[in-house]
Amino acid sequence: MSTSLADLETPIPLVDLDRLDRNLDRMAAYASEHGLALRPHIKTHKSPRIAAEQLQRGAVGVTCATVREAEVMSEVASDILVAYPILGSSKLQRLMALPPSVRITVALDSAAAVEQLAAAAREHGRTVGVYVEIDGGMHRVGVSTPDEAVALARLVTERAPLEYAGIAFYPGHIRQGPAEQQQALAQLARDLHTFTIALERAGLPPQVVSGGSTPTAWRTHEIPEVTEFRPGTYVYNDRTSAAVGACTWDDCAFTVLATVVSTAVPGQAVIDAGTKALGREPVRGVAGEGFGALLDRPEVTVRAMSEEHGILDLSTTDWRPAVGDLVRVVPNHVCIVVHLNDVIYGVRGDTVESCWPVAARGRGQGQG
Amino acid sequence: MSTSLADLETPIPLVDLDRLDRNLDRMAAYASEHGLALRPHIKTHKSPRIAAEQLQRGAVGVTCATVREAEVMSEVASDILVAYPILGSSKLQRLMALPPSVRITVALDSAAAVEQLAAAAREHGRTVGVYVEIDGGMHRVGVSTPDEAVALARLVTERAPLEYAGIAFYPGHIRQGPAEQQQALAQLARDLHTFTIALERAGLPPQVVSGGSTPTAWRTHEIPEVTEFRPGTYVYNDRTSAAVGACTWDDCAFTVLATVVSTAVPGQAVIDAGTKALGREPVRGVAGEGFGALLDRPEVTVRAMSEEHGILDLSTTDWRPAVGDLVRVVPNHVCIVVHLNDVIYGVRGDTVESCWPVAARGRGQGQG
Repeated sequence: MSTSLADLETPIPLVDLDRLDRNLDRMAAYASEHGLALRPHIKTHKSPRIAAEQLQRGAVGVTCATVREAEVMSEVASDILVAYPILGSSKLQRLMALPPSVRITVALDSAAAVEQLAAAAREHGRTVGVYVEIDGGMHRVGVSTPDEAVALARLVTERAPLEYAGIAFYPGHIRQGPAEQQQALAQLARDLHTFTIALERAGLPPQVVSGGSTPTAWRTHEIPEVTEFRPGTYVYNDRTSAAVGACTWDDCAFTVLATVVSTAVPGQAVIDAGTKALGREPVRGVAGEGFGALLDRPEVTVRAMSEEHGILDLSTTDWRPAVGDLVRVVPNHVCIVVHLNDVIYGVRGDTVESCWPVAARGRGQGQG
Repeated sequence: MSTSLADLETPIPLVDLDRLDRNLDRMAAYASEHGLALRPHIKTHKSPRIAAEQLQRGAVGVTCATVREAEVMSEVASDILVAYPILGSSKLQRLMALPPSVRITVALDSAAAVEQLAAAAREHGRTVGVYVEIDGGMHRVGVSTPDEAVALARLVTERAPLEYAGIAFYPGHIRQGPAEQQQALAQLARDLHTFTIALERAGLPPQVVSGGSTPTAWRTHEIPEVTEFRPGTYVYNDRTSAAVGACTWDDCAFTVLATVVSTAVPGQAVIDAGTKALGREPVRGVAGEGFGALLDRPEVTVRAMSEEHGILDLSTTDWRPAVGDLVRVVPNHVCIVVHLNDVIYGVRGDTVESCWPVAARGRGQGQG
């Protein structure tokens, strides 16, 4: 039985399966061409079936941000980086309860996080890799100086069964156009060199230097120190990925299918995708108005939203939709939209081919 | 067995049960004092147990935005307004499948929505009330002129088993301080009067005039035409409610418990509540920086976020938290935060007393 888009209840996320395949292939080919280890961040899709596709194409493992994500990914991945300090006994117990066959690595930036992780690892007799997180210029997390990195790496080596496995950074501040990106990447390369030299001199050479994001992914090979990269968004892409040149508009695999619900106020049309379906994310890295744009009419943006209403700006178009019409919105930031949904539909053209749960959504805490 | 906050995994939403009770009581008393029908919007809490508390305190029914919310609320409510046009056969079938004992009313603003609803109601032989949605100045949805309201109300009367039940509006544009609010409410009252006079002259007097939002709730009695109001946020309140004077800071019943995960970058502390826990909502109605503020230190705001990181601005305080410390964040817009979570914990002081699911979260579509 074939299902068409008109049979679905809106708002609902769709993934164009042909575009998804192309996006997966392209990043795998890039990693292979440059001898880089690809460890994709699964926060974007939160689905074991997509992680399995990434691993089949040569990814060395996956990256997660939460214990819930690690639990769900352990169904398909045997090498999991949790790129987030895991604190508190409840979460640490869940981390240690991952199948013994899974190699766990945690990225962290404090002695407190090392001590908590070491205590849990000792209690369970479980080897856990550690990346020392360094600040690559984003100023969000990560130690600021080579001395701090050396001290933290040394502490890890003194806390068996923890294993010092390398350093990690996240270049989330580098999204802008080619010229500025060039300059920022050059600065990052100099900083990374300073950190690695200091660690080498201290007898703590990082086996892995792990970085990467989708906006910088295709230039990862220009930073000599980097051995591994962790892009996430590239599987689906979004309006920001296209705006910063990390993909073309035709590489945007993810849309939110929405219905026009009101045209009563002149000069606009209202769709049933608002903040609870699209998030309220700006275009990042470059200027861009609105909270998403129509796949088939990128000049039409969602200019304002309430919780369940999105207002299409019709000032740029002669197109006038009717109540009941369907539209497909490319969101500004796809990771946030996935997190808002329980299921994703896979489509080819206008035919619905499959449906899968966003299995690692939520936190997975008990209800007691 | 008593559970303390330190036993919970963060980020997780908490509701102060004493404050919740107080908020429920206060709005019920206001409605009773002024002879107004209270039909609270359950989008804020999405939980039958809170709806039951509202109904026990005299609410005439509940307001929902989605079919999913109506399905879940039918467990406890026998009078449900869906303040949203329901379009598409799949959603209309679900609406008609609500228990026959439930009185359903739908608010809509187009002939297309009337015709779809009428066809479904006829097919199921089910009486459905209709409110004609009018634009009360927000310019989001709703018919703009009295003539359009008359035409739509007349169409409804010609489409049995639909029943024309009144008019609805949403004053979501009125959030600002008392003086501007006064002026905006006066304009709204004039507009409502024009609409009701036109409807009366056409022989279509609205039995119900339904309005209301939390920022304007306490002044509903100043608009003579209004018979019913639909505030939602008042159960929990949020940073915006307090900022616009709809409640005090001590009435904020809802917080997100978060853990400090990094203090590596000087001058800030990073918590594990980012966009995926707090949403990216501005303070609305009045000026306000950041994406939330600490319950016990309202001068400390979440100044920036990534998906799983919130950066606390420490420039306004001498307080310096350590990695592992717990904080409680009052979000800018609580409805969005509830929608991001599967469970809520009820607390008194630092003791966790109960836990309930956000039962009407999501869309409830099939996965086929």
